Amino acid sequence: MLRAVYPGSFDPVTFGHLNIIQKAAYFSEELIVGLLSNNAKSPLFSIEERVNMLREVTKDYANVRVEVFDGLLIDFARSQNANAIIRGLRAITDLDYELQMSHTNHRLDPNIETIFMNTCTEYSYISSSMVKEIATYRGDVTGFVPQYVVGKLEEKFVGK
Amino acid sequence: MLRAVYPGSFDPVTFGHLNIIQKAAYFSEELIVGLLSNNAKSPLFSIEERVNMLREVTKDYANVRVEVFDGLLIDFARSQNANAIIRGLRAITDLDYELQMSHTNHRLDPNIETIFMNTCTEYSYISSSMVKEIATYRGDVTGFVPQYVVGKLEEKFVGK
Amino acid sequence: MLRAVYPGSFDPVTFGHLNIIQKAAYFSEELIVGLLSNNAKSPLFSIEERVNMLREVTKDYANVRVEVFDGLLIDFARSQNANAIIRGLRAITDLDYELQMSHTNHRLDPNIETIFMNTCTEYSYISSSMVKEIATYRGDVTGFVPQYVVGKLEEKFVGK
Amino acid sequence: MLRAVYPGSFDPVTFGHLNIIQKAAYFSEELIVGLLSNNAKSPLFSIEERVNMLREVTKDYANVRVEVFDGLLIDFARSQNANAIIRGLRAITDLDYELQMSHTNHRLDPNIETIFMNTCTEYSYISSSMVKEIATYRGDVTGFVPQYVVGKLEEKFVGK
Amino acid sequence: MLRAVYPGSFDPVTFGHLNIIQKAAYFSEELIVGLLSNNAKSPLFSIEERVNMLREVTKDYANVRVEVFDGLLIDFARSQNANAIIRGLRAITDLDYELQMSHTNHRLDPNIETIFMNTCTEYSYISSSMVKEIATYRGDVTGFVPQYVVGKLEEKFVGK
Amino acid sequence: MLRAVYPGSFDPVTFGHLNIIQKAAYFSEELIVGLLSNNAKSPLFSIEERVNMLREVTKDYANVRVEVFDGLLIDFARSQNANAIIRGLRAITDLDYELQMSHTNHRLDPNIETIFMNTCTEYSYISSSMVKEIATYRGDVTGFVPQYVVGKLEEKFVGK
Repeated sequence: MLRAVYPGSFDPVTFGHLNIIQKAAYFSEELIVGLLSNNAKSPLFSIEERVNMLREVTKDYANVRVEVFDGLLIDFARSQNANAIIRGLRAITDLDYELQMSHTNHRLDPNIETIFMNTCTEYSYISSSMVKEIATYRGDVTGFVPQYVVGKLEEKFVGK
Repeated sequence: MLRAVYPGSFDPVTFGHLNIIQKAAYFSEELIVGLLSNNAKSPLFSIEERVNMLREVTKDYANVRVEVFDGLLIDFARSQNANAIIRGLRAITDLDYELQMSHTNHRLDPNIETIFMNTCTEYSYISSSMVKEIATYRGDVTGFVPQYVVGKLEEKFVGK
Repeated sequence: MLRAVYPGSFDPVTFGHLNIIQKAAYFSEELIVGLLSNNAKSPLFSIEERVNMLREVTKDYANVRVEVFDGLLIDFARSQNANAIIRGLRAITDLDYELQMSHTNHRLDPNIETIFMNTCTEYSYISSSMVKEIATYRGDVTGFVPQYVVGKLEEKFVGK
Repeated sequence: MLRAVYPGSFDPVTFGHLNIIQKAAYFSEELIVGLLSNNAKSPLFSIEERVNMLREVTKDYANVRVEVFDGLLIDFARSQNANAIIRGLRAITDLDYELQMSHTNHRLDPNIETIFMNTCTEYSYISSSMVKEIATYRGDVTGFVPQYVVGKLEEKFVGK
Repeated sequence: MLRAVYPGSFDPVTFGHLNIIQKAAYFSEELIVGLLSNNAKSPLFSIEERVNMLREVTKDYANVRVEVFDGLLIDFARSQNANAIIRGLRAITDLDYELQMSHTNHRLDPNIETIFMNTCTEYSYISSSMVKEIATYRGDVTGFVPQYVVGKLEEKFVGK
Repeated sequence: MLRAVYPGSFDPVTFGHLNIIQKAAYFSEELIVGLLSNNAKSPLFSIEERVNMLREVTKDYANVRVEVFDGLLIDFARSQNANAIIRGLRAITDLDYELQMSHTNHRLDPNIETIFMNTCTEYSYISSSMVKEIATYRGDVTGFVPQYVVGKLEEKFVGK
């Protein structure tokens, strides 16, 4: 039985993230989307805005819960009684870092495994940072993020 | 709920394979280890020998079943009512081929997802072909394969 | 001005190949699709069948010509008065081999450059060998190759 | 017919960049070297200094024009009536990011294609940041950048 | 005869670094561990603290010397009369940057070669930055760094 | 002190191989070039021809010895009292296989380490198989292999 956390910054959540959430939720008893709050990089959206976006776009998944966490991912996973960490694989060069994290987390708690899923081809190139750059210059992001997030991005850049 | 197939040639099964089987069995209602019989490469062990080895080394896992299949992996997965295909990630250069297969299989049946797991660091470099090469020259393979397989390899190369 | 050759085995031609041909033809005065005949691997389709397939699926491109060649790619490019070689980039692990070939060809003739194009995301995972494997087991290949090639694949595997 | 933009920060322009400019100019009706001005990283040379360097080292190419741009690359390409974006491939790990950008730009404007060229082997390892680091410590950069740029680097670090 | 420098930031030194030092010392007449002091990133440990840690954990190697350097690695290597630079290979994506540095350094001084060694599998995933992140949240780092460094990390985070 | 073996098929020896031999010989008390005789692929040159070529092109290196071996590399290294195995790194995708071999050999004998060296940029793309393909079609291989090998290649393909 799979009880998993899916961690990330989700600044903002994209169709790529949603694709992973959908797949992982299907296989899991419960999927906890973990929003990492202590990230060093200055985010576009506040934690509260990101939680709201995540809850809005996952509201149709009965077994998905959104939580904010601070500190080590492995501690968060343990606090949620999770037995797995879900990571999306977007690209080959990601894998190296992912394996490093996975091995480190396995050393910290051998009872929590890391599971990798890849996004569908049409979402495989989407990243939150590219979405933000495009939105900054009023480019069209409707193919990259849900409609709700499109609206939130427009609010950020209106009048700028 | 996860109901998965883990396909391979298993010529022979290694500690790396067993590591994936153990993890995947833990998360699955049922895990079907699928032994691909139509593989072009001339194997060291016959299908029957490989089935026996797989059943022996997985006998303690109540929800693991070993099956032989011929043809497309996606058809085999469908015939087992599986909703997922498990693939081990041993190395970065594997990933590219794995993503290609995953996307192809997703196109053939969007209801069956591919899930990737990595082996523990101490098994991350083991491959069946290296095990066979070492055994050919009577090298020590006890760190790479279960004791039962060590015996079967010795039988193959005795008197040669 | 670009006058390019696009070499390959095309056994059979896929939507991925066609995607590159379309892009390269758009930028070129003339694009010569070069079918390599001295390939060691035993092909499914004869040279004649592959030429016919390539001519059929490229018939709407006025500046695309299909030619068979034997020997070194650089000699073929020179014989066609080409100033460029077009290569598709499907995957990261391809690149290494591609750069090796590109540097070798540059050393053999510094007047002919190699140009790389990537396929659209929806074709990025298609390979001729996977198409053949799927067709062997009567899987559905309509999403991977043009309708004309679907028919030719069916002819090969009917009655088998 | 190829009408291309070659974007970059060029802080400073290196022999690697010049190698790509030379190749791309040869194939293009017009090549627009696009100097990205809104780059977050604090540059060594001002926009004006970089434009001057680029114009100086490309002055012998009749169909090369240097322009400064701000905002999205795809918007700049469109404003120049370009049908292609040229990207240099220096290394395998570059490719992943490049394919991501290429797919994103293709989604934003399917009429503008990305074309990749690799530098000659002797320039394949040069990067602007390494050049700057070497110059900071008065190392010899004559093998990495044109003589004009060597002079400008010396001016920056004299008296420091 | 090998006389090598092994450069790094060592913030802090890990079992992965020690594994490389042990191997390199075995092959070298003298191994100079070079602590780079002009690193832009804000370190956790001061130069003095890092020198002390390095000297403590390498005190049993008679032919290992710890030195601080500023400026170009190639100049430091020359000042130590070294004929080689040792670099650890932890991961595939490292290699690209490593080859770039190696080629650049070779151009700056062709008499100093770069030699790569890989860490044992059990240390292959350890990085100083992950160690620091784990220690920040009071995670257990005893499997990643020597006991002396564990103590120094605890001192840093006590009372925070 | 370094006492190393440098294994390979050398069918034929290239400037890339020679570049590694030169570097490794410089650092080693003795360098044993190990010609693997039990290679499955059908070679162009016989073992005797390859030994002669290797001895001819390394005759100026006093501490280089050429030996033929059969079986496991680690057994050969041990039989030569070597404490290291030298491997050339030509490309990123090589590394993965190389690390796998290195870890396997380390498990078989922890007293023999694998050391990696990269070739100079101008030789970084040369492979024996490309050299053979070019020579088959009477292409110019003088930039890829020593003059003695050029002659041997011409002998093979004269009258064919």
